Amino acid sequence: MSVEKLQRYREQMRTELDKVVEFWQKYSHDTQYGGFFTCIGKDGKIYDELKYVWLQGRQVWMYCRLYRTMERFNKPEILEAAKSGGAFLRRFARIPNSGSPWKCAFCLTRDGKALKVQRTIFSECFYVMAMDELARVTGDKDMQAEAAQMMDQLVHWVRVDPSGLGKPQLSGDTPVCSMAVPMMLLCLVQQLTEARSGEEVDKYREVGGWCVKQILQHLQRGGTAILESVSSEGKELPGCAGRLQNPGDTLCTPLKEISLDQGCSIPVLEGQNTSGFCFYLGQCVLFSQLEWSMKLWWPHCEALIAYLMAYSHTKEPALLERFSQVYDYTFSHFSDAENGEWFGYLTQQGKVTLDFKGGPFKGFFHVPRCLYMCEKILDSILNKQES
Amino acid sequence: MSVEKLQRYREQMRTELDKVVEFWQKYSHDTQYGGFFTCIGKDGKIYDELKYVWLQGRQVWMYCRLYRTMERFNKPEILEAAKSGGAFLRRFARIPNSGSPWKCAFCLTRDGKALKVQRTIFSECFYVMAMDELARVTGDKDMQAEAAQMMDQLVHWVRVDPSGLGKPQLSGDTPVCSMAVPMMLLCLVQQLTEARSGEEVDKYREVGGWCVKQILQHLQRGGTAILESVSSEGKELPGCAGRLQNPGDTLCTPLKEISLDQGCSIPVLEGQNTSGFCFYLGQCVLFSQLEWSMKLWWPHCEALIAYLMAYSHTKEPALLERFSQVYDYTFSHFSDAENGEWFGYLTQQGKVTLDFKGGPFKGFFHVPRCLYMCEKILDSILNKQES
Repeated sequence: MSVEKLQRYREQMRTELDKVVEFWQKYSHDTQYGGFFTCIGKDGKIYDELKYVWLQGRQVWMYCRLYRTMERFNKPEILEAAKSGGAFLRRFARIPNSGSPWKCAFCLTRDGKALKVQRTIFSECFYVMAMDELARVTGDKDMQAEAAQMMDQLVHWVRVDPSGLGKPQLSGDTPVCSMAVPMMLLCLVQQLTEARSGEEVDKYREVGGWCVKQILQHLQRGGTAILESVSSEGKELPGCAGRLQNPGDTLCTPLKEISLDQGCSIPVLEGQNTSGFCFYLGQCVLFSQLEWSMKLWWPHCEALIAYLMAYSHTKEPALLERFSQVYDYTFSHFSDAENGEWFGYLTQQGKVTLDFKGGPFKGFFHVPRCLYMCEKILDSILNKQES
Repeated sequence: MSVEKLQRYREQMRTELDKVVEFWQKYSHDTQYGGFFTCIGKDGKIYDELKYVWLQGRQVWMYCRLYRTMERFNKPEILEAAKSGGAFLRRFARIPNSGSPWKCAFCLTRDGKALKVQRTIFSECFYVMAMDELARVTGDKDMQAEAAQMMDQLVHWVRVDPSGLGKPQLSGDTPVCSMAVPMMLLCLVQQLTEARSGEEVDKYREVGGWCVKQILQHLQRGGTAILESVSSEGKELPGCAGRLQNPGDTLCTPLKEISLDQGCSIPVLEGQNTSGFCFYLGQCVLFSQLEWSMKLWWPHCEALIAYLMAYSHTKEPALLERFSQVYDYTFSHFSDAENGEWFGYLTQQGKVTLDFKGGPFKGFFHVPRCLYMCEKILDSILNKQES
C-alpha cells in the first residue's frame, strides 16, 4: 500500500478524532453537578441523567491521555474536564457502608447517589485508570496513591478472596476463570508501570506475569479457539459457559510481544473487555446474549487497532488489507456523518438498531481510543518510512 | 367467522398441544437426577445440563394443570413427571444459609447444587405455583402448606421489607414499582384461591386488591400507555426506566373483568411477565435490552390468548380477526414443523436467530399454556354456539 494511502488514513483518523472529542466536550459535561452525562442521543440530547461509573472513569482517562500525549489536545479545557470528572468520581463512586471502603457503584444519579452496584471488579478498574492517568497530568501524589490502593484491593479480590465483591457463596458455583479479569488487570499493570521503576513496579510486574499465565489458559482446542471462560485448572468448561467466545477480547490479544520477568514472551493486551458481541462455537452460547448476531462498535474499534498494530510489527501486506476492510465497513456504517460520533449497535445486515451515541457501556472511550491509537501507529509507520 | 373455522382452530390448537407435550416428555426428563433439563436444542438435544428454577416450577405447574383439567392428559406418566419435578424442586430449589429459609436459587446444576441466585421474587413465585397445583392433584396437605408459607414470605418481601432478597441498600436507588411484581402476585392469588374458601382466601383477596391498585398505577398518559415501571406515588419516572413498555405484560391485562371485595371491577391478569420484547416510547429504553426489535415467542402466545379471550367476552368480530392474524404469523414463523415445539427468538423480519426450544427463560410453559388456554376458550365458545 502506498505512503499516500497511509497518510490519507492518518488524516481521516485525525479528523474523526477531533470531531469525536468535540461531540463529547459539547454534550457530555455536567456543569451543574460535575462529572459526565453518559446517556446521549444521536444528536447530543441527554435522554437519561444517570451517570455510569465505568464511563466516568474512562472519560477521565481518555481526556488525560489525549492531554498528555497529543499536542493538539494539550489544552486547559481538556484538563479541566478531566479534573471535574476525577473530582466527581472521588467524591461519589465509592459506596459508603458496602463492607469494603473500595467498592464502587456501577451507576449513579446525576447528583452522585449510588443507584446500582455490580458484584464484579470493573468499576474499580476504571477508577484506577482514571486516578493514575489524572495523577500523571496533575502531579497529584494522593491521587496516585489512591490508584495504587485500589489496585491492591483489586488484586486481593481476584487472587486472594472475592467475598468483598458481595456475591453469595453457592455450592454449585465452582470457580470459573473469565478472560476479562486478567486482561483488565494486565491493562492496569501497563497503566501503573509506564515510565516508572522501583518496588511498586516490581510488584505489578509479578501481577502482570500472573495475568499472562491466566490469559494463556484461554487458548484452547490446540490454539484454534480463545474461550472467554475456562475452569480454574485451565480446562474447557461444559455447557454454554464453556463455548462463549468474545471477538472483542480475542482481537486485542496477540499483538505486542513483550518479555516479562518470568522470561516468557507473551502478547500484551491493548483493549478492554466490555459486554456483548458473542458468537457460536457450534452450539448455543448463553441466552442472555440475544444480541449475538448484532454488530457492535467496540469490537470493530479493537479490530482496527489490532490489524494496524499487527501490520506495524510484521509489515505483512495482508494485515493492512484487513485493516482496510474493517476501516471501510466501520467508517461507512458506524460513523455518523450528520451529527458526529459513532452509532454503537447495528443489525447483522448493518442497519442501525439503537441510534444513541452514549449508553451504559458506550461512552468517550472505545471510539476515541481507537482513533487515537491508530493515529499514533500511523505516525510511527510513516515516520519510519520517511527516515 | 364460521363455526367451521373456529372448529379448525380448536383442532389445530389441540394437535399442536399434543406435539408440544410429547416433545418435552421425550427430551426434558432427567431420569437420573430428577427434575427437568431446560436447555434443549431444536432437535431435542440437551446442550447444557443446567436446570433453571423458574422453568422447573412452571413445568410442574403445567403438567399438573393438564393432568387435572384435560381428560386426555389425565395419565399416570404426566402425574409422575410432575411429582418428580416437584420432588427435585423441594429438595434443591431453596438455598440453605441465604439469610431466609425461603429464598430460592435461579439456576441449579444437574444434580441440584445452586449456581445462581436472583435478588428478585420470581423463582419463589413459580415455586408457589408448582407446589399449590401439585398439592391439588396429589392431595398433599404439606405441599399446600409449603405453597402458603412461601406466599406469605413473598408478600412480606413485596409489601413489608425487601431486605431478605439480598439487594444492598443504596442511597440513589429510590423505590420503583415494577408491574411484573403485582402481576405475578395476582396470578398467585388466582392460583391459591381457585375453588377454595375460608380465612386464607380472604387474606389472599386482600392481597389481590392491593395488586390491582398497584397495577392500575401503570396505566399512564391518560390511559394511552401501560408503563412497566412507575414511582411509588404512581407517577411516571424520568429517564429510560420510565419509558419501558412490555407488550407481553400489556396484552395480558385488559381481559377478564372480575369484582373484588373492594368493589372495583378490574382486569385480571392471565399471563406472567418474563424478560425481553421491549420497545420505544419516543426515546431509548434501557440498553441492556438490545433485543428490543426482535420478535419473541411469549408475547405472541399472550397475544393469542388475549385476543381470543377478548373475543369470547365481547363477540366483537374485529378481535377474532386480530387473533387470526397473530395465529397465522405465529404458526407459520415460531412453530417448527420439522422437529416439533416452537422457536423462541426471531429477528424483526421473522428469521429464526436462536433456534433452541428450551433456554433459561423458555421452557414448558408459554407455548403449552397458550395452546391449552386457546383450546379451552374455543371449547367454551363452540359449546355455547351449539347449545
